[in-house]
Amino acid sequence: MINYPIKRKAQVKTTSYANLGMTLESDIEATNLFYLNHGVAVIHKKPTPVQVVNVSYPARNKAKITEAYYKTPSTTDFNGVYQGKYIDFDAKETNSATSMPLKNVHPHQIDHLRGVVKHGGIAFLIVHFKKFNQYFFLPAEVLFSYWDSQDDEEKGRKSIPYSAFLDKAYLIPFGFQPRLDYLKVIKDHY
Amino acid sequence: MINYPIKRKAQVKTTSYANLGMTLESDIEATNLFYLNHGVAVIHKKPTPVQVVNVSYPARNKAKITEAYYKTPSTTDFNGVYQGKYIDFDAKETNSATSMPLKNVHPHQIDHLRGVVKHGGIAFLIVHFKKFNQYFFLPAEVLFSYWDSQDDEEKGRKSIPYSAFLDKAYLIPFGFQPRLDYLKVIKDHY
Repeated sequence: MINYPIKRKAQVKTTSYANLGMTLESDIEATNLFYLNHGVAVIHKKPTPVQVVNVSYPARNKAKITEAYYKTPSTTDFNGVYQGKYIDFDAKETNSATSMPLKNVHPHQIDHLRGVVKHGGIAFLIVHFKKFNQYFFLPAEVLFSYWDSQDDEEKGRKSIPYSAFLDKAYLIPFGFQPRLDYLKVIKDHY
Repeated sequence: MINYPIKRKAQVKTTSYANLGMTLESDIEATNLFYLNHGVAVIHKKPTPVQVVNVSYPARNKAKITEAYYKTPSTTDFNGVYQGKYIDFDAKETNSATSMPLKNVHPHQIDHLRGVVKHGGIAFLIVHFKKFNQYFFLPAEVLFSYWDSQDDEEKGRKSIPYSAFLDKAYLIPFGFQPRLDYLKVIKDHY
């Protein structure tokens, strides 16, 4: 009997660096995990809401959903606690080099963010300008001012110009750990 | 041409009273909706996390999930903001008249609640003793003390006795609007 050497699959070494910058959402989730593991904050992404229509039970204790549909979320995607403060935000990406279209934000998200601000929470958007690979922390109050004036015939516009991000938003440094240190903006400016 | 009177369907008047006390979760959601609509607080239930395996696209813009499974939530079900404070809790029910079994709480929920308390949030359980139709606000700190001593050979126990609820938890009044005014406990005791 001959012992053939076992062929091993080439082990591709995947570090978290490998996925670096893959998607905005995964970058934020990696950041949140860093915050959690380092005792900085407890911030999570909410699960995507799903309307379940049919469930079957092919095996014990393992319900299989066989028909379901995505629902529109009624809030933002991320929330949590940092230094006793309630934190609430959503993430947006744009391919534009000149502005972020306001249609990227749903009206119910605006309502939700207004409620958060009204009750003393910290509300914002993380906006990724893909063309420049820049990430901005846009305070909800700046978002509201553009949202509320978009139907104004004289000064209204359907987007927030890139220049407003340079003026009124905060650049989030992109790093290794944490990848997107958005809490630094809160630490420095709130 | 004769105009027949249009037959109207009997309008069944459904008030929120109709569902009163239906399930603990729906009572909390009705309470949260009351808080939201009356500008008291912004507190939501997180969607149930689902692992999507297969999606089909039978019609435009309408993805149909054809295979998915429920995932174990890594956090609690409810969170939000009240008077600038981060609020985080889960809801538990028990049929027992003597205690709430600790196995009703998942270890990762304990970890999560510890993180919330560490970062200055307000963490608790709403516990429904169905036998007495009583609802308690159990501060997370009380939960931790029972959780941490459960393997203690001398004084450890696998449940929190009803008497501890009378001593160390707060009774939440059940009413019409809001149904379960758990924020009153925070207002009065925090």
